Amino acid sequence: MDKPIKAFVFDVYGTLFDVIAIKEQCEELFPGHGEAISQTWRTKQVEYFMMRQLMEKYISFAEVTRSALKYALESEGLESTEAIERQLMDAYLHLPLYEESEAVLRELQNHKLVVFSNGSHDMLDPLIENAGIQGLLDEALSVDDIGQFKPAPAAYQYALSRLGIERDEVLFMSSNGWDISGAKNFGFRTAWINRKQAPVEQLGLEPNYVFSDLKGLLKWK
Amino acid sequence: MDKPIKAFVFDVYGTLFDVIAIKEQCEELFPGHGEAISQTWRTKQVEYFMMRQLMEKYISFAEVTRSALKYALESEGLESTEAIERQLMDAYLHLPLYEESEAVLRELQNHKLVVFSNGSHDMLDPLIENAGIQGLLDEALSVDDIGQFKPAPAAYQYALSRLGIERDEVLFMSSNGWDISGAKNFGFRTAWINRKQAPVEQLGLEPNYVFSDLKGLLKWK
Repeated sequence: MDKPIKAFVFDVYGTLFDVIAIKEQCEELFPGHGEAISQTWRTKQVEYFMMRQLMEKYISFAEVTRSALKYALESEGLESTEAIERQLMDAYLHLPLYEESEAVLRELQNHKLVVFSNGSHDMLDPLIENAGIQGLLDEALSVDDIGQFKPAPAAYQYALSRLGIERDEVLFMSSNGWDISGAKNFGFRTAWINRKQAPVEQLGLEPNYVFSDLKGLLKWK
Repeated sequence: MDKPIKAFVFDVYGTLFDVIAIKEQCEELFPGHGEAISQTWRTKQVEYFMMRQLMEKYISFAEVTRSALKYALESEGLESTEAIERQLMDAYLHLPLYEESEAVLRELQNHKLVVFSNGSHDMLDPLIENAGIQGLLDEALSVDDIGQFKPAPAAYQYALSRLGIERDEVLFMSSNGWDISGAKNFGFRTAWINRKQAPVEQLGLEPNYVFSDLKGLLKWK
């Protein structure tokens, strides 16, 4: 028999919030390039925080995100300005929730609900506030407090120490294969929100549950 | 005045050898899927050794490469068999050199020439031998000897300790942005072989030289 779940811990970018939706603001500023910018921006954002962790050269998620944006614009051959970058970085504070995110958080209010993100508080806190879901969450934890990015074990260890429970009493949700693998590797129970119908990562770390969106969590309602 | 270069150190996959050329064998086995398989295979190979390093769960490059192949085939919805995987893994031991690679190694024979790869010796040594370039190289170093993948500083440190020279007496060549960034971060001098005309990575680690292919090295002939 599994232990009871004492905390539902959610990743943020790609899991509760749609990061690719930012393509609309990119498209307005750079017609014909919105899709490519948003995809490269996200790909490089993930690559850059992994690289920073690997190279032992932490900088905040806000700085990583801005660097990734610069790369994305340059890879499309586009000229950028301070003002454009500020506008797109600001759009990152107003990302839309996936359509089911808020309803699922509401349905699970009898549980402890926490978010745990690579996002630094300067990005994470305004995002949650702008979406109006801060009242639905018990806590918003950021790796910025220790300067170690997920999927390093030290990052999940930080979240665990803040929760004050056992590893296998955490159910961790993410849409990102690298994040769900890292969490499982650390010892969390995991629910992969497999929004893109992708194969399970071949890392020997099968998630405990796989759902196509967050509504799969309603079995614990 | 720069110090003289005491060793020319080459990355292997994507730098001396064309990993995407394997699309032809993939295409023969799975018509219409060759390009997609070869691209996903490489993307996942890189992602998986980075993930392994980040999660502190080293396995050899051969195992990483086989896992990435499984993912690539599954993502195309293809059924695989042991025999097919063996055939494609074997093809990885017969990758073609880029067209200029051998000639450039020949022209630089008055220098110390070393390869330094994430590839384990079970993949690296046969590849070099099958290409017939072992006589052109002073040494083939693999991270497998210490179980730490590039771009972690520990990996470059291993190469340096084997060379017995100073960091800035190494000129390190790679086509991979993550590798050239990691080498520069460690303190090597770097020449980025920018085969795809990509932007410089936004990691605050500009390479010392940028060439469109290895022929750029002939200035040190």
